Amino acid sequence: MSGALRIGIAGLGTVGAGVLQLLEAHGASIAARAGRPIVVSGVSARDRRKPRPVDVSGLRWFDDPLAMARDPEIDAVLELIGGSEGVAKGVAEAAIGAGRHLITANKALLAVHGVALARAAEVAGVTMAYEAAVAGGIPIIKTLREGLAANRISRVYGILNGTCNYILTSMRDTGREFAEVLEEAQQLGYAEADPSFDIDGVDAAHKLAILTAVAFGCEVDFKGVYVEGIREISALDIAYADELGYRIKLLGIATLGEDGVEQRVHPCMVPLGTPIAHVDGVFNAVVAEGDFVGRVLTEGQGAGAGPTASAVVADLIDVARGIALPAFAVSAAELRRLPALPAERHVGSQYIRLMVVDRPGVIADVSAALRDCDISVEALLQRARSPNEAVPVVITTHETTGAAMDEALRRIAELKAVLEPPRRIRIEAL
Amino acid sequence: MSGALRIGIAGLGTVGAGVLQLLEAHGASIAARAGRPIVVSGVSARDRRKPRPVDVSGLRWFDDPLAMARDPEIDAVLELIGGSEGVAKGVAEAAIGAGRHLITANKALLAVHGVALARAAEVAGVTMAYEAAVAGGIPIIKTLREGLAANRISRVYGILNGTCNYILTSMRDTGREFAEVLEEAQQLGYAEADPSFDIDGVDAAHKLAILTAVAFGCEVDFKGVYVEGIREISALDIAYADELGYRIKLLGIATLGEDGVEQRVHPCMVPLGTPIAHVDGVFNAVVAEGDFVGRVLTEGQGAGAGPTASAVVADLIDVARGIALPAFAVSAAELRRLPALPAERHVGSQYIRLMVVDRPGVIADVSAALRDCDISVEALLQRARSPNEAVPVVITTHETTGAAMDEALRRIAELKAVLEPPRRIRIEAL
Repeated sequence: MSGALRIGIAGLGTVGAGVLQLLEAHGASIAARAGRPIVVSGVSARDRRKPRPVDVSGLRWFDDPLAMARDPEIDAVLELIGGSEGVAKGVAEAAIGAGRHLITANKALLAVHGVALARAAEVAGVTMAYEAAVAGGIPIIKTLREGLAANRISRVYGILNGTCNYILTSMRDTGREFAEVLEEAQQLGYAEADPSFDIDGVDAAHKLAILTAVAFGCEVDFKGVYVEGIREISALDIAYADELGYRIKLLGIATLGEDGVEQRVHPCMVPLGTPIAHVDGVFNAVVAEGDFVGRVLTEGQGAGAGPTASAVVADLIDVARGIALPAFAVSAAELRRLPALPAERHVGSQYIRLMVVDRPGVIADVSAALRDCDISVEALLQRARSPNEAVPVVITTHETTGAAMDEALRRIAELKAVLEPPRRIRIEAL
Repeated sequence: MSGALRIGIAGLGTVGAGVLQLLEAHGASIAARAGRPIVVSGVSARDRRKPRPVDVSGLRWFDDPLAMARDPEIDAVLELIGGSEGVAKGVAEAAIGAGRHLITANKALLAVHGVALARAAEVAGVTMAYEAAVAGGIPIIKTLREGLAANRISRVYGILNGTCNYILTSMRDTGREFAEVLEEAQQLGYAEADPSFDIDGVDAAHKLAILTAVAFGCEVDFKGVYVEGIREISALDIAYADELGYRIKLLGIATLGEDGVEQRVHPCMVPLGTPIAHVDGVFNAVVAEGDFVGRVLTEGQGAGAGPTASAVVADLIDVARGIALPAFAVSAAELRRLPALPAERHVGSQYIRLMVVDRPGVIADVSAALRDCDISVEALLQRARSPNEAVPVVITTHETTGAAMDEALRRIAELKAVLEPPRRIRIEAL
């Protein structure tokens, strides 16, 4: 293990620049921990002349990242481009194909092609590492794959998208509506110009699919994830959550059942007594539940140049040390193929909010619809009285299936006195 | 790396039995993750006939744990006896000396002899692993040594003793006094018959000394830890903490300064807005602050058979996989020897509570004593008025040194109207 680990960096955006800055800042201590220096032997990005927070003029430049991935003077390739297809996929495949270690921060790539890439890496005898792909600076892949390796993990869940958590936290702090807070988040750089990947839950679903595979030792199944974003969350629901003793969080939740895996990403009412209810702003958190260890929660920053670079370089240090583990805890051949359990079968309490005309009989009609779908009401709140005007009615239910609630909401929406599509948020007993 | 990893277990108390149960429950998945089976080739404990939750009759028994440590059919020795000297130390030294890997859950041993053992392990070319020694099931050693390896860690702190956290949580929940809650904790098995190691902060100090070494890459310096336990915490202080927006927690805090390392274990007033304020009961939590990653918190169960066994077996899986890292992140020769910064020089806000005779002039005298020591008052509470009777007076200060406060408290204690020794709790800005 003498000699430097020579790396090539494909993609010099926020993360790529952060990695260069980190390697420059802590080269000596990284070499001490890795047992050998890590040197940048090549970089590649779309535009060589773009202004960057770090000087790349002295580095060997590749216009073609695939050529860099195959370059004989590079031992490990950092794919920091992003996207499940196109150049990013090409670089990953070229690197592995050429016998280079692959370090990536690309959740979309892994969610869609993770198992194929893990298989290819095993055939090539190289490491594929991706700590930065899930929950940024939180070393959750290492925690699941190594730290908790002795356990049977039955559930893993968390706040996996900092943009959504920032928006939900800010809505609660300020009482403002979603659209307004989103705009501010975009101005502050916490949300993309096209925010749909984040706010529609796709990014969290990518990350959940990867966590599921590592936690349960099964194949990545992104298509098996039920996904619902936060666009429909209103200031009113956030205020009611407070009143009822909950916080609204976008969670990704994977549960290992008897007959398969349930993966869900959707807004949840989280009881105030649980640690994850207090994870605010751009922070992420992941909880793993193991049969021997119990509940382990890790919280940290889920995005940004520094935290993501921290995760990428931790992977690099492992590679430099010669630590070579199967990407998803066990070898690709041993990964189980577990059936996806549909979210409609999930049993839990729910919160529903209706806007109704305040007149006699409305509550009776709504209650009857719930009863007819075998849904039992836990609490019902109708606070403001404004005869013949629109008022909110909030109902929390005892445990029911998603399917029963879908049917009840369909019936309730048809009632004349119900003015808007009913809102539903699942209550998560964590 | 073919063939089983053959282990010998010295000590069959709670942890040893837990390890046997875990290996039995998850042998197959552990083998899949480790790449080879882990088999128990020997066990040793003081009393062979003692009833245990797991059947050891089929296992090779050693009356002498040192003989087991040197047995040629054992590759790795688990030292689960405890204590910094005596048999535990003998087993550790014998194992390393005989070229066996050493896995230990023994914080006292590592706090006192950690560097010498790490050096011996390096000379012998074996691994010394000790995830279970700090914070039970939380994989904090792996997190610091590997997951956050790219960072310069500037501070690491946490709730490191579940017994103290259980007592403090229970005092707050019930309003009862320390002695009563301690007795209950002993009945429930959360505190030892002789609880002094826990409640006087020694156990937390052992763990903090180890965390300090891993986080900062320096030699373990247990003697450099300032230690103060929780015996003096009263129900009254807990109630005042609530009123002031704090929780009282026993924290271990290590800070890397310009000119050395400050290590402190003492009760703290922790602002309610920080995540660690909400870590309750037997849970532990550790926060690391890195320059790139920012703040990372991990929370989990700090003791008990299951969590501790989870950590021990994670180490075993690493050893079976052939992962060999220096015990304290860098090789023993590279560990820095950093001066211990005295706690009296620490600058921070403080809470003090006095019992005074309620008569004119008392507050003026107390205030004068603080002023004469250059201590500036932030807030002063004297709620109940009972002329000429004993009433509590609570003062929070702006930042001051421990030394200045020591002197001020000495002067205040001498005032005639002050009836009991003043209580002081440091306010920690986390």
